[in-house]
Amino acid sequence: MSAEAAFIDILRGFATAPAARGLADDAAVLELGDRVLVLTKDMLAEGVHYLPDDPPDHVASKLLAVNLSDLAAKGARPLAALLGYTLGDEAWDRAFAEGLRADLAAHSVSLIGGDTIASNGPRILSLTLIGEARGPGVPSRAGARPGDDLWLSGTIGDAGAGLAILRGSLTGSDDLVSRYRIPRPRLQAGRALATLVSAMMDVSDGLLIDAGRMARASLIGIEIDLDTLPLSDAYIAAVGDDRAARLRAATAGDDYELLFTAHEAGRGNIAEIGERLALPLTRIGRCIDGTGLTLTDAGGPVPLPDSLGWQHGDA
Amino acid sequence: MSAEAAFIDILRGFATAPAARGLADDAAVLELGDRVLVLTKDMLAEGVHYLPDDPPDHVASKLLAVNLSDLAAKGARPLAALLGYTLGDEAWDRAFAEGLRADLAAHSVSLIGGDTIASNGPRILSLTLIGEARGPGVPSRAGARPGDDLWLSGTIGDAGAGLAILRGSLTGSDDLVSRYRIPRPRLQAGRALATLVSAMMDVSDGLLIDAGRMARASLIGIEIDLDTLPLSDAYIAAVGDDRAARLRAATAGDDYELLFTAHEAGRGNIAEIGERLALPLTRIGRCIDGTGLTLTDAGGPVPLPDSLGWQHGDA
Repeated sequence: MSAEAAFIDILRGFATAPAARGLADDAAVLELGDRVLVLTKDMLAEGVHYLPDDPPDHVASKLLAVNLSDLAAKGARPLAALLGYTLGDEAWDRAFAEGLRADLAAHSVSLIGGDTIASNGPRILSLTLIGEARGPGVPSRAGARPGDDLWLSGTIGDAGAGLAILRGSLTGSDDLVSRYRIPRPRLQAGRALATLVSAMMDVSDGLLIDAGRMARASLIGIEIDLDTLPLSDAYIAAVGDDRAARLRAATAGDDYELLFTAHEAGRGNIAEIGERLALPLTRIGRCIDGTGLTLTDAGGPVPLPDSLGWQHGDA
Repeated sequence: MSAEAAFIDILRGFATAPAARGLADDAAVLELGDRVLVLTKDMLAEGVHYLPDDPPDHVASKLLAVNLSDLAAKGARPLAALLGYTLGDEAWDRAFAEGLRADLAAHSVSLIGGDTIASNGPRILSLTLIGEARGPGVPSRAGARPGDDLWLSGTIGDAGAGLAILRGSLTGSDDLVSRYRIPRPRLQAGRALATLVSAMMDVSDGLLIDAGRMARASLIGIEIDLDTLPLSDAYIAAVGDDRAARLRAATAGDDYELLFTAHEAGRGNIAEIGERLALPLTRIGRCIDGTGLTLTDAGGPVPLPDSLGWQHGDA
């Protein structure tokens, strides 16, 4: 067990309120009378989650996106944010603040507080988002049942390819770089889907690693048909669409798409939501009895790759 | 203007929702229908806010206390916490978690989420607390009016003296060390006082610096009579009670007492609350027309010391 997993396990021992959801969901869900608050707090560390020479406004976008995406997965509307910020270079600080301002405005989220501190080490940025969901029944990762369809919003792999382009290890379209630089958390889709799904979470560390987490939380197995994975034209042009390209897309991070399960009776309603929002919603597999992930494509069973995505702690 | 003040000024330019209170209060106050949420997020950095060899359970106590004290100052009842944590030494992590567990339980606060990350630098710890206040009219720093009494809960200077004892620059009673090691945010008093005060804030950086902030927020002047400052017997035994000792107490940090103002018609009710809670509530001065701080003692006007307390950013 990693040091991180061990520490979260200790916290789990006393984070026993229902709102904590066992520290195993995208966000906390706190009922307050007839209001349902959804709270999430994700951090970014310089040199770990972003590179020191990444543009500061992109770091602000990413900090907001990782948190918004958690709210999207719970069908919540974001209300307000609190920022935790370690000061550094003043020009960087200003550019970060300007980026944060623009992104918060784009999502109608108010900055309402936080803390700024001096620090000698790498920057550690933290954002707390508070949102509101329509209760009861805020989707969790744990509600998937054998027989349910497995769905994915949008396309995957684009942001990972965009990052590879920025790092010089891939050539491809600017659209891919934009997918990395300007994350688009699926807030509208999350709200529209919330009452139709049996389980929902966001895909931020890689489809396979996140699908595995959903399978574990729901005590089921998940079967994914690689041939059905939604890839963008730009991704296919840059990387291809063979098995290796599909596995690469399924293990890349920063997608901020929604992974959800639903009974097959919901297919018509889900398709309508996708059309209304002009957002592809694709069935990529199914929930089965058992445990863990199973991959297939036209060639038959596909062995799981060594790395399923990006490993880190997130509660 | 410090880099910190400049950065907060930029944030203030777009943190314009009423809930943000201009980033100039102890906490954000978010109204949601007929519920009033109070949110605060304070951070501690290793080497800045605590020493690397401080006991981890004390660091947990302090992290919780700085945030609880913000809620106390708004008369809010704490509900739940989200932790932002940079992993380090595993034994330290375990001891921190155990301390946090005990302290959260003592205050009936649930840990409901957060994030843990790896980092190469000094630890940066962050806690978001969400509480609930009885609305409307959650006390701010900005409501004090000329003529109001200025009050302080408990005694001041004890924690600062306790820290000096730990650092070997002072000898004195273990009670002082306990005041530093085990902060006691005034949650009950804050709730009891909330409807009686015209302004309220917590004293965490030093009485003088915090009183100056209240004066600025309320657009008034504040006059403090040093002779009335409540000092503990242990403090007087260790440091004395002359002018220098009183100025030292008034500029020490980590008190976590409440500073509040009220119309003189409230004196009887306030005294009753102090008796009921067995907590000294002392009139230490008054609000006047004008700006800034004025100090006096039996000897007449007292010049302001160069340092009024501990300077750092906190919104």
